[in-house]
Amino acid sequence: MMTAVEVITAKRDGKTLSSAQINWVIDAYTRDAVADEQMSALAMAVLLNGMTGTETADWTRAMIASGQCLDLSGIDRPTVDKHSTGGVGDKITLPLVPLVAACGAAVPQLSGRGLGHTGGTLDKLESIPGWRARLTPEEIRRQLVSVGAVICAPTDGLVPADRKLYALRDVTGTVESVPLIASSIMSKKIAEGASALVLDVKFGSGAFMTDLGRATELARMMIDIGRANGLATRALLTDMSVPLGAAVGNALEVAESRAVLRGEGPPDVVALTVALAETMLASVGIDDVRPAEVLASGAAYETWCAMISAQGGRPEDRLPEAKYIWSLEASQDGHLFELDARAVGLAAWRLGAGRARKEHPVDPAAGVLCLAKPGDRVVAGQPLLEFHTNDQTLIASAVEAVMDKVTVSPIPPAPTPLIRERLS
Amino acid sequence: MMTAVEVITAKRDGKTLSSAQINWVIDAYTRDAVADEQMSALAMAVLLNGMTGTETADWTRAMIASGQCLDLSGIDRPTVDKHSTGGVGDKITLPLVPLVAACGAAVPQLSGRGLGHTGGTLDKLESIPGWRARLTPEEIRRQLVSVGAVICAPTDGLVPADRKLYALRDVTGTVESVPLIASSIMSKKIAEGASALVLDVKFGSGAFMTDLGRATELARMMIDIGRANGLATRALLTDMSVPLGAAVGNALEVAESRAVLRGEGPPDVVALTVALAETMLASVGIDDVRPAEVLASGAAYETWCAMISAQGGRPEDRLPEAKYIWSLEASQDGHLFELDARAVGLAAWRLGAGRARKEHPVDPAAGVLCLAKPGDRVVAGQPLLEFHTNDQTLIASAVEAVMDKVTVSPIPPAPTPLIRERLS
Repeated sequence: MMTAVEVITAKRDGKTLSSAQINWVIDAYTRDAVADEQMSALAMAVLLNGMTGTETADWTRAMIASGQCLDLSGIDRPTVDKHSTGGVGDKITLPLVPLVAACGAAVPQLSGRGLGHTGGTLDKLESIPGWRARLTPEEIRRQLVSVGAVICAPTDGLVPADRKLYALRDVTGTVESVPLIASSIMSKKIAEGASALVLDVKFGSGAFMTDLGRATELARMMIDIGRANGLATRALLTDMSVPLGAAVGNALEVAESRAVLRGEGPPDVVALTVALAETMLASVGIDDVRPAEVLASGAAYETWCAMISAQGGRPEDRLPEAKYIWSLEASQDGHLFELDARAVGLAAWRLGAGRARKEHPVDPAAGVLCLAKPGDRVVAGQPLLEFHTNDQTLIASAVEAVMDKVTVSPIPPAPTPLIRERLS
Repeated sequence: MMTAVEVITAKRDGKTLSSAQINWVIDAYTRDAVADEQMSALAMAVLLNGMTGTETADWTRAMIASGQCLDLSGIDRPTVDKHSTGGVGDKITLPLVPLVAACGAAVPQLSGRGLGHTGGTLDKLESIPGWRARLTPEEIRRQLVSVGAVICAPTDGLVPADRKLYALRDVTGTVESVPLIASSIMSKKIAEGASALVLDVKFGSGAFMTDLGRATELARMMIDIGRANGLATRALLTDMSVPLGAAVGNALEVAESRAVLRGEGPPDVVALTVALAETMLASVGIDDVRPAEVLASGAAYETWCAMISAQGGRPEDRLPEAKYIWSLEASQDGHLFELDARAVGLAAWRLGAGRARKEHPVDPAAGVLCLAKPGDRVVAGQPLLEFHTNDQTLIASAVEAVMDKVTVSPIPPAPTPLIRERLS
């Protein structure tokens, strides 16, 4: 007979938890036999004292065992998924999933909603009229067969322990633990049942992990968990000190994603989409298709339309537009020097694009358009940012968010590579 | 506007909490505006990252402010209290409170119940027929005027934050934090309103803090909190590697306490009672009375009878006796070498003297009598311990608890002083 206090005090005192202890505590927490106040104390002890690789792999397996995995049998294409740790303007999932499907793989992408200054993929897609996020496991399977691409909410039975624990960590100051983040992400990805996974692990001001070292540690830990569970996992470490593309905000990002799928769109979004697609395809052995060509051919856009339509969306309908658009102008001639991702994300959030609490709605039309990127030559009076909102009173605090964080300088900044490293 | 997550993450990241943060979080927790799972995460962060002296004093004051203090106005004797951190066979409060009252001070002793291997003063007194633990603040005041001695349960309004937090810490592995222990004890003692306090801080196997260094740290912290709040506080550091006296168990300890009050009783219990009484009296300026003489005169026993009667108890009635008494005998001639306090406490607990959960009842008659003390000469077959219980099936596991922890050796152990240090 184990008790919660025994498991908590073991971790508190710096001991390594056994598989049996981890299995017991996750299962008991899922069944409400371990209380929230016990799990939050354990989570804080894990955050401060860490977990070994073995403990983290055990923790992940115990979370997976709390529910049912998706059944992807009967799908004859190779299955592959991606996960991004989240950033400002990171809409890459939107063009990437149909692109990879158009290249011949099947992509079961179970996504989340945004909280804080980074957006959520489901929130973005919900700005498309008619589109619905919730599918049954059977609907997911059928759509993977027919279209090859699904972006939807996690199904109810998928890793219930993570859903509970994630909500708890959010209110108890226990989010920022590398092993807990890694096991939360990987438990869902493993339960999805794809045969390969590519991680986009971000660092920089707009990322969850601002520090490259910590981001690398997280990437390594997730690759190890994938390997321990038979899921081939690779990772790209990518820069998130500047927003991705121009659009930050739900409908604005959908519009930008459509442009990418039509062979247009900002070069950084296109480059990262293509790089991730190539890595995903390589990891399931598809090496005879060039994603950049598939984008240019229009095939990826066709798959996008089929994917959106399959979930009730009307892909060609007008997207919501904001009532008020206000421009922030350059105060002097020079180069755009800094365009801080976190500040821009916060501004978009304050304009209504994000939520403070998970039960709040988001404003699909709200957000920020970045009209210049670092290094661009600008002249005094030229608009640098466009603030989109349906509530004019929110503009002042959005401007405040970017003060001293969007700067013009006589000299350009040193260029930084978008993709810093590839791990596998 | 503060949030619980801000306060938790500040402590998690090793920062010092401000008075405003501490006041807010304790008040909000008392009002249920901060949830149990948030407070337990904070408690774990406090346990692992510590609190400064100032933070601990602030924490204590915020706890006191959560309720009402006792009003001891109108009592013309000097008021003084004691607190023991708890040990096996530690019945000292029982003879000490009436003794100090018989010497001319008034003692408002708000006590607790036992949990784990150490007994609780209220559980012990409840083995006296008719005695009741719950008094109103007005009853306490009146009894302090008439008798000068009260031992009772904390009143409802006294430090409600501590009651909530103590129950939470008990189930979340966050008991063993020196600042949280110190603030829990001192908040109640300061709220009691006495003008001086003497602490009996125990170390050794049967104590809560087994290590002398940690016990000293706790004593120092409590003295500092007392000083910061105008409560003159002194401490004795006393050895708890061997049970105090012979009796361990509720009615058994009451009987031994009565013997002490009649001028009899084991020498260690008498010595510690007298030493604590002298320190308490000195701390309120009473220096013309000798507690040892007051014990011998029978005056302390009279005060005991008056104190018990005032709370409905019948002090001369027979105490509950156990149906079964089983003796553990010495296996060889020699000296009793080890009599491990924790093992004996655990044996008494297993015989029914303690509770596993706070809602459980205790068996007043159950317990252990130690018939020899370390250093005593014993012969093979001589009874060393008497196990008292109403449930014969419990004896085997009680014997198991003391295996290899009560030993006979050809040579006697080195004698150790009961009182190791005095701090003020």
